[in-house]
Amino acid sequence: MPMYELFYWPSIQGRGELVRLALEEAGAKYVDVARTDGGMAAMMKVLGGAGPSLTPFAPPFLKSGSLVIAQTANILMYLGERHGLAPKSDAGRFGANQLGNTVADLFAEVHDTHHPIASDLYYEDQKTEAKQRAAAFIAKRMPKFLGYLEGVLEKNGGRFMIGRRLSYVDLSVFQVIAGLSYAFPRAMKRAGGRCKGLHALHDRVASRPRVAAYLASERRIPFNEDGIFRRYPELDRAR
Amino acid sequence: MPMYELFYWPSIQGRGELVRLALEEAGAKYVDVARTDGGMAAMMKVLGGAGPSLTPFAPPFLKSGSLVIAQTANILMYLGERHGLAPKSDAGRFGANQLGNTVADLFAEVHDTHHPIASDLYYEDQKTEAKQRAAAFIAKRMPKFLGYLEGVLEKNGGRFMIGRRLSYVDLSVFQVIAGLSYAFPRAMKRAGGRCKGLHALHDRVASRPRVAAYLASERRIPFNEDGIFRRYPELDRAR
Repeated sequence: MPMYELFYWPSIQGRGELVRLALEEAGAKYVDVARTDGGMAAMMKVLGGAGPSLTPFAPPFLKSGSLVIAQTANILMYLGERHGLAPKSDAGRFGANQLGNTVADLFAEVHDTHHPIASDLYYEDQKTEAKQRAAAFIAKRMPKFLGYLEGVLEKNGGRFMIGRRLSYVDLSVFQVIAGLSYAFPRAMKRAGGRCKGLHALHDRVASRPRVAAYLASERRIPFNEDGIFRRYPELDRAR
Repeated sequence: MPMYELFYWPSIQGRGELVRLALEEAGAKYVDVARTDGGMAAMMKVLGGAGPSLTPFAPPFLKSGSLVIAQTANILMYLGERHGLAPKSDAGRFGANQLGNTVADLFAEVHDTHHPIASDLYYEDQKTEAKQRAAAFIAKRMPKFLGYLEGVLEKNGGRFMIGRRLSYVDLSVFQVIAGLSYAFPRAMKRAGGRCKGLHALHDRVASRPRVAAYLASERRIPFNEDGIFRRYPELDRAR
């Protein structure tokens, strides 16, 4: 019997990827439910309020025994406590969650670069506005987030985002760098010099044995244009 | 000496209001630093990375002894643990934080109804896009969030959002209803019938002695058009 059931959209990395990375690094047994037969129906049932647990607002959510936990940063905090993927002190656990929430905010802003008007409209129907929002994101918000995260890493000694060993925050920063580099290669090339520490952290995380095995497996869904990080060249820097 | 120092923009309710409400209901001693002489300079210094603590990405943040805690939902979780404003079980504390994160997401979406393109542009320079985004928010997202929160309240017995006594989530739902009613009075009137439980919860929270005293005091900054919830009639339902 699996330790965890993860519920997330089956064809994208999206927010669920932050949870997958934590589960993989922890060496936890889990089923990615919506990628199994009948899994989508099971996911929709929980989202519809079935069962006695607190209903999730949206995927991802994680079943652990009788617990159903939603909201990415919240799931990460839960897994961090259980698998030694977060510091144990108050400063450490609230600090890790602070950074987890900040990464969640960044993900939401990246999503809105291609969907600035409405999630349920096609990209093509909000492309003009997307270009404006993406330009503002690349010019101001992306450098602000990256500069902030780089500063946090430096202040903590350059090796880990928080504490003295790997935490879920480092795994999430790996995904931030991977995702932004996929979606905005030209802007990231330009920003590269100002976040060398984050790139080095990305590479260290990618080469950890469990993460490397995961990235090479079919469990890692490739980036694509249905997820949070989408490569639409017209939204990237012109050069 | 005060127990806490709260750092937030001095002239708006914004996200900081969720923290103020928790501090007030807890009867905690705190200073709203940026509203005191020299307070803004002190806030900017911490945001600039001064001191040994983890730097906040943005206000609000809370100083508690040597701890500096940022991200609204994270601060609420911290105060919830310390002041009995959250359940203690795993299901309760992760459940409360899940709802705290969902309220934070709702706040971000409300912000983007008036700033769909860029936070650092004036509303007037993104008014056309704001009308589109606000229309989508009112038609789809607001009903989805309110329907979700109403369902959570009902499933939990109708009196509290989570657990068997008041938590910071109830205080946050008070602010959600107050804020949406201020910003979108016509849309909220239309939605009212589908979230009677939330409105009743709003009224119960407002009449708690400490909350009532706070709301009647000068510490409660009135809603205004610099905050998250802004009354721009052109963004509300037409009728």
